[in-house]
Amino acid sequence: MNLLESLYKVERLYPEKIGVICGDERFTYGEFVTRIKQLAGAFRDRGIGREDRVAILHQNCHYFLEAYYALSLLGAISCPLNYRLSAREIAFILEDTEAKALVAQPLFADLVAGSLETLGRDLPVFWTGKGEIPADGAAVEAMMAAAKGDVKPADVSGDDVAQLYYTSGTTGRQKGVILTHNNVAVHALGTIAELKLTDEDRWIHVAPMFHLADAWATWAITWVGGAHVMVPEFDAKRVMALMEREKVTLTNMIPTMLNLMVNDPAMKTHDFSSLRVMLSGGAPIAPEVVRKIMAAFGCDYIQTYGMTETAPYLTMSILKDTLKTRPEDEQFRFKAATGRPVIFVQLQVVREDGSEIAWNNEEVGEIIVKGDSVTPGYWHLPEETAKALKDEWLHTGDLAVVDPEGYVNIVDRKKDMIVTGGENVYSTEVENVLYEHPAVLEAAVIGIPDEKWGEAVHACIVLKEGMTATAEEIIAFCKENLARYKAPKSVEFLDALPRTGSGKIYKKGLRDKYLK
Amino acid sequence: MNLLESLYKVERLYPEKIGVICGDERFTYGEFVTRIKQLAGAFRDRGIGREDRVAILHQNCHYFLEAYYALSLLGAISCPLNYRLSAREIAFILEDTEAKALVAQPLFADLVAGSLETLGRDLPVFWTGKGEIPADGAAVEAMMAAAKGDVKPADVSGDDVAQLYYTSGTTGRQKGVILTHNNVAVHALGTIAELKLTDEDRWIHVAPMFHLADAWATWAITWVGGAHVMVPEFDAKRVMALMEREKVTLTNMIPTMLNLMVNDPAMKTHDFSSLRVMLSGGAPIAPEVVRKIMAAFGCDYIQTYGMTETAPYLTMSILKDTLKTRPEDEQFRFKAATGRPVIFVQLQVVREDGSEIAWNNEEVGEIIVKGDSVTPGYWHLPEETAKALKDEWLHTGDLAVVDPEGYVNIVDRKKDMIVTGGENVYSTEVENVLYEHPAVLEAAVIGIPDEKWGEAVHACIVLKEGMTATAEEIIAFCKENLARYKAPKSVEFLDALPRTGSGKIYKKGLRDKYLK
Repeated sequence: MNLLESLYKVERLYPEKIGVICGDERFTYGEFVTRIKQLAGAFRDRGIGREDRVAILHQNCHYFLEAYYALSLLGAISCPLNYRLSAREIAFILEDTEAKALVAQPLFADLVAGSLETLGRDLPVFWTGKGEIPADGAAVEAMMAAAKGDVKPADVSGDDVAQLYYTSGTTGRQKGVILTHNNVAVHALGTIAELKLTDEDRWIHVAPMFHLADAWATWAITWVGGAHVMVPEFDAKRVMALMEREKVTLTNMIPTMLNLMVNDPAMKTHDFSSLRVMLSGGAPIAPEVVRKIMAAFGCDYIQTYGMTETAPYLTMSILKDTLKTRPEDEQFRFKAATGRPVIFVQLQVVREDGSEIAWNNEEVGEIIVKGDSVTPGYWHLPEETAKALKDEWLHTGDLAVVDPEGYVNIVDRKKDMIVTGGENVYSTEVENVLYEHPAVLEAAVIGIPDEKWGEAVHACIVLKEGMTATAEEIIAFCKENLARYKAPKSVEFLDALPRTGSGKIYKKGLRDKYLK
Repeated sequence: MNLLESLYKVERLYPEKIGVICGDERFTYGEFVTRIKQLAGAFRDRGIGREDRVAILHQNCHYFLEAYYALSLLGAISCPLNYRLSAREIAFILEDTEAKALVAQPLFADLVAGSLETLGRDLPVFWTGKGEIPADGAAVEAMMAAAKGDVKPADVSGDDVAQLYYTSGTTGRQKGVILTHNNVAVHALGTIAELKLTDEDRWIHVAPMFHLADAWATWAITWVGGAHVMVPEFDAKRVMALMEREKVTLTNMIPTMLNLMVNDPAMKTHDFSSLRVMLSGGAPIAPEVVRKIMAAFGCDYIQTYGMTETAPYLTMSILKDTLKTRPEDEQFRFKAATGRPVIFVQLQVVREDGSEIAWNNEEVGEIIVKGDSVTPGYWHLPEETAKALKDEWLHTGDLAVVDPEGYVNIVDRKKDMIVTGGENVYSTEVENVLYEHPAVLEAAVIGIPDEKWGEAVHACIVLKEGMTATAEEIIAFCKENLARYKAPKSVEFLDALPRTGSGKIYKKGLRDKYLK
């Protein structure tokens, strides 16, 4: 399978339907496909073709979608860039991919200038938008106007590389994750099946499209003939108004976004009756928070877990039919779980020796996965690839327990596990308790060096607006609800937690100051 | 992707759920998987392994499902046989596939004996059931009891052959259609997406499982953790009772079955409230009949079109969101159409020169299709394969029009088009009118040799019980509703129409007597 099948579908079946809504602009799928072909023609005129890498530096926008598809039409490879990266990091990716061009939003002119200076070689930059563009480079709209849209779709096979996504790099050097057309297309089709997506669905792109947590929906929503609503930058009030106006039916948000919306008094003034399901993930969630989100939006909730290497979804907390007769509280516990494997993925949680752990919600093992959506490896990093992929099984580095029903619960990243006084403490377990404290908005638990304990449990806390709590209160609260050795030895109050581009809490950043 | 992923899912997530209901027996998925492993062990003990062909001659039954999966576990190839074939035809398939064994139901002992005699070589026969078995061969239950279930699933790839289905052969020699694991798995996943299948679905296997019209559901329903209800032989009253008792949610029936049920007075006494959708296909259907089926069952209706070579679905008459605001009559016309392409298939209707026809519901072309569910070709028939597959596009031989919304309507098989007095007459168009006649139960229109017209339009009619009509009345009715040249010149009344094993009307049989 390849990604072009999704474009082919809307071009033929939904030419007059509004498919893309971006600011004041509304494009029918017919217009959208015409623009994509013009853009592909413009790329072709500039020598871009099969297997060439082209980077994209852009907020969520119709240009992003168009660039994704135009590159696919040519059999080229798109490399979406996280715009929160430094110029140095972007230069590294441009170098590593040997990018042949960069599609960029004028908003990021300074970042582009800095990146190119560090890169130290010429790189054509194609600027989007209808306004002024920086002096260097060409304007995409002018390129498109001058181009011929007579592009014959490249004869791409499922094994051809479609995209390179650089992982956010919570540890070590950035790596380019290779995703083939088959990886991404099987993920899209399988997710359509899991979420029952149809042409009546309207997805709001709130999480950044340069990350797979949102990018997968690019293909899936197009494929079913649904509609895309673009949000360039998160603002709780504006997003809520847009969701109401555009009758959004589902989306994926990172936990911080959900937190901000649910706690915003304006929430109650909006009509979310079109919304049928809210997805989130990237951080554990407490059953109480799930209940709150469902009540606030009046829709279903699905917790997800995935990674760039798997395009991304691996699990969803969709209830099996056999669980729907359980008491409501129990159902919420399953809804808040990391979830059960998605239909197109094989997932096991294994011991060091490769055998499966017991499904008793206690034994901890590493999640390994296999399937058509799993990356063939890292770009030009055969050793890293061999380390991650053993016998086609990808070793995720995530530690989890499995309950008797087969629902996975992540307890920690391998590297985030804290060893204190010889006991293993999984930070998630402590964080879950912290989130139950009425004053806590966000929490991250790390291990910090300690003479007595080896590592000591340390909590970083963001309090809710207008709320107060002392370190002593927080620690006492944990001791009431956890084994004493798991309770934090120290607590630190912050205005905000540092995050990676994909919205994950950047624990390395929290730990670093204690390591010096 | 491969078929074993579906088995892997239920083994892990639904071990205690009743998955297979067959007569008085009810198997949990745990028991089902254990039986499959035992059977695979038994096959292995008899030297069956990777790429070996094993034929299956069986009514719908848990043994059929178990054999399908046990062979997949070993990487062997299953060859389901149509039990309506003659001994000579079965011998041909056993010979052509070089079958290594035959799994058979004792009911077909005579047919097996005749086939083996014609075949003229030894072939191990494994008899199913718990009762007496014919003298030659081994009992499957005893084999399973003696076997070890420690079978390690073969490391099958998507390109490995999973099945060989022999096409029913309305014309010429029987051909073995190769279906790979990827063909069948992508079809299953894509159909799960199209029909929104979940673990709450309960499928009744009414159409014979040796044909893909039902067999696809074997994998798809297992994959989502739904339930299978087996019907060995069609009987309207028994099927309706079973549908009610087992709370069936959807199925696919051939038109004759639907006809019999809808016209059965017992229908009204049953509760079909669990039923959410009825699928049918294989023959065109009139909007009025769709309306009647939906009213009788109180569920949605989807018309389908497919072929063995495509695993099988190519189109479904699912309404696009943009059509749901149309007047009700128009919506029924779309529901009765052949449908729009399924999500995992590319479909075009083309002229002789390969260009696409106009979407005006008038111009007729041949349907060609492409995608992951399309066969790589015919078993040991490179010339037939090359004739059917050109540049990865399968030429179906079916003639169709396309309406401005992209919905396909089949007008005829290439070979079924009638040329009379220089005009093309598509038999389906005439049949649609005939079905509107109040006395007509079934109709098939063929061309018969005629001195004046070259071919003359001839109608074969089965009347409804207790109803009468004369040839003159039928012809007059057609002339009222069709161009005169399309109306039959002659009418023949029959007790039943001849059908192929897959339920399609066997027009060659009708034509043959006029060709002598």
